[in-house]
Amino acid sequence: MIRIAIIGAGRIGHVHARAVDAHPAAELVLVCDPFEKNAKELSAQYGVRYCLDPQEVFDAPEVDAVIIGSPTRFHVDHILAAVKAGKKVMSEKPIALDVAEAKRCIDELGEAADNVMMGFNRRFDPSFAEIHQRIDDGEIGQLQQLIVVSRDPAAPPAEYVAGSGGIFKDMTIHDFDTVRFFLGDIAEVTAVGTNVDEAIAAQGDFDQVLVTLKSTEGRLATIVNSRSCAFGYDQRLEAFGADGMLSADNLTQTAVRKATSSQTEAKSAVMDFFLERYEDAYRIELGRFIDTADAGTPASPSVRDGYAALLLAQATADSARTGAAVKL
Amino acid sequence: MIRIAIIGAGRIGHVHARAVDAHPAAELVLVCDPFEKNAKELSAQYGVRYCLDPQEVFDAPEVDAVIIGSPTRFHVDHILAAVKAGKKVMSEKPIALDVAEAKRCIDELGEAADNVMMGFNRRFDPSFAEIHQRIDDGEIGQLQQLIVVSRDPAAPPAEYVAGSGGIFKDMTIHDFDTVRFFLGDIAEVTAVGTNVDEAIAAQGDFDQVLVTLKSTEGRLATIVNSRSCAFGYDQRLEAFGADGMLSADNLTQTAVRKATSSQTEAKSAVMDFFLERYEDAYRIELGRFIDTADAGTPASPSVRDGYAALLLAQATADSARTGAAVKL
Amino acid sequence: MIRIAIIGAGRIGHVHARAVDAHPAAELVLVCDPFEKNAKELSAQYGVRYCLDPQEVFDAPEVDAVIIGSPTRFHVDHILAAVKAGKKVMSEKPIALDVAEAKRCIDELGEAADNVMMGFNRRFDPSFAEIHQRIDDGEIGQLQQLIVVSRDPAAPPAEYVAGSGGIFKDMTIHDFDTVRFFLGDIAEVTAVGTNVDEAIAAQGDFDQVLVTLKSTEGRLATIVNSRSCAFGYDQRLEAFGADGMLSADNLTQTAVRKATSSQTEAKSAVMDFFLERYEDAYRIELGRFIDTADAGTPASPSVRDGYAALLLAQATADSARTGAAVKL
Amino acid sequence: MIRIAIIGAGRIGHVHARAVDAHPAAELVLVCDPFEKNAKELSAQYGVRYCLDPQEVFDAPEVDAVIIGSPTRFHVDHILAAVKAGKKVMSEKPIALDVAEAKRCIDELGEAADNVMMGFNRRFDPSFAEIHQRIDDGEIGQLQQLIVVSRDPAAPPAEYVAGSGGIFKDMTIHDFDTVRFFLGDIAEVTAVGTNVDEAIAAQGDFDQVLVTLKSTEGRLATIVNSRSCAFGYDQRLEAFGADGMLSADNLTQTAVRKATSSQTEAKSAVMDFFLERYEDAYRIELGRFIDTADAGTPASPSVRDGYAALLLAQATADSARTGAAVKL
Repeated sequence: MIRIAIIGAGRIGHVHARAVDAHPAAELVLVCDPFEKNAKELSAQYGVRYCLDPQEVFDAPEVDAVIIGSPTRFHVDHILAAVKAGKKVMSEKPIALDVAEAKRCIDELGEAADNVMMGFNRRFDPSFAEIHQRIDDGEIGQLQQLIVVSRDPAAPPAEYVAGSGGIFKDMTIHDFDTVRFFLGDIAEVTAVGTNVDEAIAAQGDFDQVLVTLKSTEGRLATIVNSRSCAFGYDQRLEAFGADGMLSADNLTQTAVRKATSSQTEAKSAVMDFFLERYEDAYRIELGRFIDTADAGTPASPSVRDGYAALLLAQATADSARTGAAVKL
Repeated sequence: MIRIAIIGAGRIGHVHARAVDAHPAAELVLVCDPFEKNAKELSAQYGVRYCLDPQEVFDAPEVDAVIIGSPTRFHVDHILAAVKAGKKVMSEKPIALDVAEAKRCIDELGEAADNVMMGFNRRFDPSFAEIHQRIDDGEIGQLQQLIVVSRDPAAPPAEYVAGSGGIFKDMTIHDFDTVRFFLGDIAEVTAVGTNVDEAIAAQGDFDQVLVTLKSTEGRLATIVNSRSCAFGYDQRLEAFGADGMLSADNLTQTAVRKATSSQTEAKSAVMDFFLERYEDAYRIELGRFIDTADAGTPASPSVRDGYAALLLAQATADSARTGAAVKL
Repeated sequence: MIRIAIIGAGRIGHVHARAVDAHPAAELVLVCDPFEKNAKELSAQYGVRYCLDPQEVFDAPEVDAVIIGSPTRFHVDHILAAVKAGKKVMSEKPIALDVAEAKRCIDELGEAADNVMMGFNRRFDPSFAEIHQRIDDGEIGQLQQLIVVSRDPAAPPAEYVAGSGGIFKDMTIHDFDTVRFFLGDIAEVTAVGTNVDEAIAAQGDFDQVLVTLKSTEGRLATIVNSRSCAFGYDQRLEAFGADGMLSADNLTQTAVRKATSSQTEAKSAVMDFFLERYEDAYRIELGRFIDTADAGTPASPSVRDGYAALLLAQATADSARTGAAVKL
Repeated sequence: MIRIAIIGAGRIGHVHARAVDAHPAAELVLVCDPFEKNAKELSAQYGVRYCLDPQEVFDAPEVDAVIIGSPTRFHVDHILAAVKAGKKVMSEKPIALDVAEAKRCIDELGEAADNVMMGFNRRFDPSFAEIHQRIDDGEIGQLQQLIVVSRDPAAPPAEYVAGSGGIFKDMTIHDFDTVRFFLGDIAEVTAVGTNVDEAIAAQGDFDQVLVTLKSTEGRLATIVNSRSCAFGYDQRLEAFGADGMLSADNLTQTAVRKATSSQTEAKSAVMDFFLERYEDAYRIELGRFIDTADAGTPASPSVRDGYAALLLAQATADSARTGAAVKL
């Protein structure tokens, strides 16, 4: 039984708490959030203790592992402190908004970086993971091109965007990890962005972007992003290989289809957002974290993958600004 | 070059004329219809001669083959006269409304019955024919169960229904042939009917029926019929075998799909009726007729298949009336 | 918090135990099975007490509700005893193999029959339930025809078949309930059966059947059953209404599709059997049981629905034997 | 009746001849190809005259319109001569391999450029055209992002590639027109290319490219190309708008699907190449050419669209070489 503390009692903290509660080998023992109302509410739900100061988490001898869901600007400090305290660590993405800050994290961790897991949940989505496995099994031969379509149902509030580090570090960061998951290290990136949302344009950020990546082995990928999508949370993937193609459609709640005089085969709307769409992924991710924590084996994805994704985000932002390809 | 006459310048006559015109080895030479307006219009469209009396067709030395699309009550006489005149013959279904009349046709034709083709166009539909071929190729092992869904977009006028011989001889007749195409001879049939259309009920006919068939080899089939269908012409097939299933969806005009906030993957409406849905089938059917006429080989389906389907229609009508299974 | 005992620690007992454990308002407190090994294993899994004699369950003051998953021949006795002891009851299907025995249950229960829930889990399948709801909402107008395709992946052992009451009471019973769920009371039923499995034929039972039903309101339904299916657990539904059609496809584990030189859009195999396919349904069913038990409101489906389905199974078996439609 | 001559009796000449023959208002009267064998064969097929010298076509008083399917290096000369001779003209793409040459064509044509139709057949594909129409009808609101996936089944021979002008002018040229068809004029383009085919790499050309385009109105598009595709001719489109998405799947020959123990819903392979995939499009394109030729109205797409696509191809090649975005 692994005893787990969660730092950050927001939306993502609730997701992780639910996964911990459902896992037979895990036990939630502590919830930490500086906003007492949040900490109290989440901890009460599972009948566990709460605290306001993360230091109490690091000091608690009954805590074996820490899940970090605090605001991004605290990630590095919380990771470093938790590792120093001998805890197993899984942190939400991104590792940091600033490349230098992320670099400091990797440097200070040293070899321990291999054991800090990064919460890139999409690697654990059953559809994406199945495609990855089947490519590994050789089903479509050498992977040659990857198309990642990733659109959020609705733009976040302008104030969120302001502090988010921009679309590449906040939203595309997941897709950078997806591309790296399938294609490995990236050699070159180019990007173009535009706006359909004036509030986001006013923040100096893009709300629609296209990113093109070339891996060190010469394979191509494209990422299609939009901050809003009329039909919900558009999360699809196409892996094109020498011998065939594997693709993942959007998910729907049921398998119902409808035919009328104006259309046929209409399914229900796609699942609307990440809590619902990736619920399985979060659950499986936690299982993987617990397995590697138990076994003491390297985490995958690790904080090094978080750093690599952040470097990509930074390079992409530069490319979108200058119009020139950026080599990594 | 085979020189073809068409008897009956109605809707189906137009379909056949178009197919003849498009076939490189066939030439339309004569159109016959007692309604001069119809005969004139169709013949003018292809710049050929017309006549009002079928006897002229049988007497015409320049006619090699006759396509019979006259009203059902004339089919047997036209078939017999055309064969007697030495013409190759393809007749529209059903062979007759009355079993005795059809029996007379088969008896008088004798061995020549093998060479008279019956216009069961659905055997030539590319999707249904592909399923048949793949079953023959052993793709799904022994065929065990067949589901035929066949619904018309809208009920015909009450006066048409009155003279149609009832739903089984008029509409289900196609599906009986489809079942025989896949399962061979039928040993037993049961049926139940109901009404959602009062005008048809007033004619003493059903407008929705379910038919269950067992082949002489013990294989099962079910036919689902409705005289009306809100989403168009519903023509589907499922062949369930020991090793898998092959099924044919409805067709749509394009491959466009749509996603909105309330649904996803919605295709355009299905093709609305038989002229459009089975255009390819009519064209391929004509090609087969010409090939067998040229080669002098047995027609398939032949007028014997037309007779077998009519026997099934009669037995099914009896079952629907009495509630008891009818053995054949 | 409702305290629940489970009678029968077999496969279905495990399903219910998992659902009880996951439900926030339910607590598993007792497991009963005459085979101590089974009782011990299931109870140990959830750290609860076990017993060998059902009477202990009925006598236990700490038990609020009983889920009956014992062999069918004990269902009626267990239902009656549990209700007499003041417990809330949900029983697995079928209510009994013998109509008279089921009748006795209904009669002895009297008004209490309304509060005994029958485990027809498929009513709670999200896809089927969505179709039901959307029909109620008027989306496809008056429901006119229902097609239920229900095939098991592989035939049970001959000894199971021998004691199962035959395919209609054992397997089709679910589909009878599905038809009643959508069409209400049934006026007339006809059936035809056949065999592709010699071991089942040797037991005097069918392994493939087609059932045709007409509701008291004149609506038609067909049920297509097979004891084996090469592609897994085939569970589909088509509801055809005056204004359109709603249908439920089979479920797959992921949304992955594959294109190769020989095919395109191929999804992964369908979910293989009921524990997996209907896991959500069992969970939702339990929630409904708890809700109605808490509220003291009538159960739906109730043991009366179980009785009605059994009557249908008996009538269908008669029809399959005699070839004649059976009126109810 | 419009009397048509075809210059170029190669593969595409045959496609156009078939479309002309099938069109009720068009008549093929002359075929021209310097290779007598080709000219003879195609002209014989339709029983018409042939010539070896294009000048004979321009001089023939019985020719109303000319379809130019000669090698690209002759397009401009043939267009100019045909127009000068008072013929209606439709030319295959691309207008030329050299921008200056294309510019000369536009300049010399002057206002007549509006009446020369460019053979961008994909605009007439029923699926793509339906999406375009439905966007115009406002079905998905303002179009925001376009994804064009366009992969050929197999790479052409190295010698063809050598004279093709490179992938952008030879293959992507169609996709540039598609993007312009949907998004209008393009302001900026970036591209990245790679090789999986060594023979093409040896020619100094790419065989896989990703192109990103931004329209003058700030809308984004991406083009995904590959010279080879294991599953056939991959031709898809996704139009993402403010209110929804319209997409076009690949086409298959039939609507058959297959379920086995390892997969479900598998369709037959996609149509393999352009002659088959775009047969309808070529037919509809010819109809449009004849309609505008008859009416004397501007052609769409015109040679100006051909010029715009070529400019895009040139700019994209520059971007792929330098890694920098190119403004137009």
